[in-house]
Amino acid sequence: MKIGIVGYGNVGKGVEQAIALNPDSELFAIYTRRDPSEITPVTKGVQVLPMSALNTRAGGPDVLILCGGSATDLPEMTPALASKYTVVDSFDTHAKIPEHFSKVNKATEKNKTVAIISAGWDPGLFSLARTYMLSAIPAGKTYTFWGVGVSQGHSDAIRRIPGVADARQYTIPIDEAINSVRLGESPDLTTRQKHKRDCYVVLKDGADAEKIKNAIITMPNYFDEYDTTVTFISQQEMDQKHSEMPHGGSVIRTGLANEKGNHTSVMEFSLKLDSNPEFTGGVLLACARAAYKMKSRGMSGCYTMLDIAPADLLPLTREEILKTLV
Amino acid sequence: MKIGIVGYGNVGKGVEQAIALNPDSELFAIYTRRDPSEITPVTKGVQVLPMSALNTRAGGPDVLILCGGSATDLPEMTPALASKYTVVDSFDTHAKIPEHFSKVNKATEKNKTVAIISAGWDPGLFSLARTYMLSAIPAGKTYTFWGVGVSQGHSDAIRRIPGVADARQYTIPIDEAINSVRLGESPDLTTRQKHKRDCYVVLKDGADAEKIKNAIITMPNYFDEYDTTVTFISQQEMDQKHSEMPHGGSVIRTGLANEKGNHTSVMEFSLKLDSNPEFTGGVLLACARAAYKMKSRGMSGCYTMLDIAPADLLPLTREEILKTLV
Repeated sequence: MKIGIVGYGNVGKGVEQAIALNPDSELFAIYTRRDPSEITPVTKGVQVLPMSALNTRAGGPDVLILCGGSATDLPEMTPALASKYTVVDSFDTHAKIPEHFSKVNKATEKNKTVAIISAGWDPGLFSLARTYMLSAIPAGKTYTFWGVGVSQGHSDAIRRIPGVADARQYTIPIDEAINSVRLGESPDLTTRQKHKRDCYVVLKDGADAEKIKNAIITMPNYFDEYDTTVTFISQQEMDQKHSEMPHGGSVIRTGLANEKGNHTSVMEFSLKLDSNPEFTGGVLLACARAAYKMKSRGMSGCYTMLDIAPADLLPLTREEILKTLV
Repeated sequence: MKIGIVGYGNVGKGVEQAIALNPDSELFAIYTRRDPSEITPVTKGVQVLPMSALNTRAGGPDVLILCGGSATDLPEMTPALASKYTVVDSFDTHAKIPEHFSKVNKATEKNKTVAIISAGWDPGLFSLARTYMLSAIPAGKTYTFWGVGVSQGHSDAIRRIPGVADARQYTIPIDEAINSVRLGESPDLTTRQKHKRDCYVVLKDGADAEKIKNAIITMPNYFDEYDTTVTFISQQEMDQKHSEMPHGGSVIRTGLANEKGNHTSVMEFSLKLDSNPEFTGGVLLACARAAYKMKSRGMSGCYTMLDIAPADLLPLTREEILKTLV
C-alpha cells in the first residue's frame, strides 16, 4: 500500500512514523504547498513533491492521507483530491461534518474513489465509542472528557494576543466530575465543572502581564466559561518543559440495564497519549488501509469510521481475525 | 423489527429487557424446548411457543436471537436456524469460533439469510476493542482483565462436586497487574498474577468441607492456576448476598507511537455491569438491528461484530449520526 502524505506538519510527521511501524505500508511521497526544497523529511530518501505532482494519477500513490487544517485547508483540499484519489482526512470541525461529508461524497463520484473523512480520535475513535455505547445502553447519558493535553487551537488563540511571544494551553478534566460519572451518578455538569484550562505564556519585552492575563481569561468561547490559570515563563522554560504534545481523554456512558431501573451499566473508553499527532497518524494509516481494501472490493463513496467494518482496519485475513481477536 | 427469543434463560430474559428499552423493536415470541405452559414471561401477553413453531417462516419474526449455551446448544441450533432465519448468537467458546463461523456461513447460503455470531461483550465489544487498539498501535501489547464478576462456568464446575448444594464464583482482576499495565510497563503476567478467584459454597448435610475445598482449589483448568479462596455459607446467605450477576472487565493496550520509541500510547476499554445477562441482551439486540438492516440491503452470510459497520447498530439515519455522534 503506497501512501502519499499531503501536508508535512505535526500530523503529517505522525503519519510518517505510523508508516514506519506498519510493514504493509510504504511512504510513496510527501506533497507540500511549500517549496519542496525547504523540507527535510525524517524518512531518508523519500521524495518531496509539489502539489501539482498530484495532477497526474498514473504511477502515483494508492491512498493520500490529507494532513491539512480543518479551518481552511481540508474543506477545499479533500473534495479536490477525492475526485481523483482514494483519500483519508481528519476533518474535525464537528458542526460542519455533514456539509463536508456531502461535498466529499459528490467528489468521489467522478472516478469512483473512496474517501474516509473525520478520522482520528475525536472525531474518530471517540465517535465509535459514543456509537457502540449508545447501541448497548439506549437509556443513559454519554460524557466526553478531554485531556490532560495540549490544545493547539487554544494555544494559537493566546499567541494571537499582542504582547505574547509564545503560549501553550493544557486542557484538564476535573477529577470530581469524572469520578461522579464513573459511579453512575449521571450528574448535570456545566462547562466549568467538566474541564479547566492551564496556560503557560512567554511575554514579549515590555508587555503588560496583567492586561494579557485578563485578555486570556475573559476570551469568549475559548476561556470565559472555564476556570483558567495563567503562568508566565521564559522561552527557555517553554522549550524545555512544554515542547511535547500529549493528549487523551475518556468517553463514558452510564445507563439502565433493564426497564425496572435497578441495574446500571457503565462503559468507558479512554486514551492516554504521549504524542497526539503520532497516535492520530496511526489511526489515519489504519483508515487508509480500510479505504484501500474497500476500493479494491469495488466500493466507492464517502465514509466515516462509523461506516467501516472494524476488520478492514487490520492487515489480517478473516481467518487470522477469527482465531486471534474475536 | 419483530424479535424472536430462542431460549428463555438469563440471557433470553436480558434480551427481553433490551427490547423493552428499544422502541424500534418488538418481542414477537419466546421459543422454548421446554413445555411452553411452564414458562411465564416477564412481558405480559407475549406468546411462548415450542421450537416446532419455527419450522414455518411465514408471518414469523424478522430476527431470532439465540440464547442457548455454547457447549451443546448453539453448535447445532445456530446453523439449523440460520438456514431459514436471520439470526444472532453469543457463541463464546473462543477456540471453536472459526469452526462455528464456517458451519453457520454455509447454512446462510440456503435462503440468503444473515447471521451474526459471537456477539456480546467477550467475544463482542472486547473483540472490537482488541481490533481497534491493534490497528492504532501496531507495536504493543494487549491485556484483557475480567471481573469483578460472577463466572457461570466456574460456579457450575463447583456445583458438580459431590456434597455441594450451591456455589457462586467471583473472578477478580488483580489491581497491581492492571496498574502496571496502565502505566505502560508492559509486564509479563502469569495467569495467577492477573486474576484471583473467590468462591462461596453451600454444603449438603454431612459433606466434608476440607475435602471439598481441596477439590475446588486443585481443579485443573478452572482453579489450579489461580489463588482461590473458598468460603462456606448458608443457603440463606447465598440467596441474600449472591443472587445478582454482576460482571465487567477491561481491555488495555500499550505500545509505541513512533519508531524511536520515546512516546507511548495507552488505550483502555472497560465495562462495569450490575447485570451481565441484561447488558449482553442489549448488545445482542443492537446486533439484531444490524442484521436486519444488512438483510434489508440484500446482504447475506455469516458475520461477527468485527465485520459490521458500527452505524448499523443504531436506529438512526446517516444524517442523525453525522450530526450527533461523529
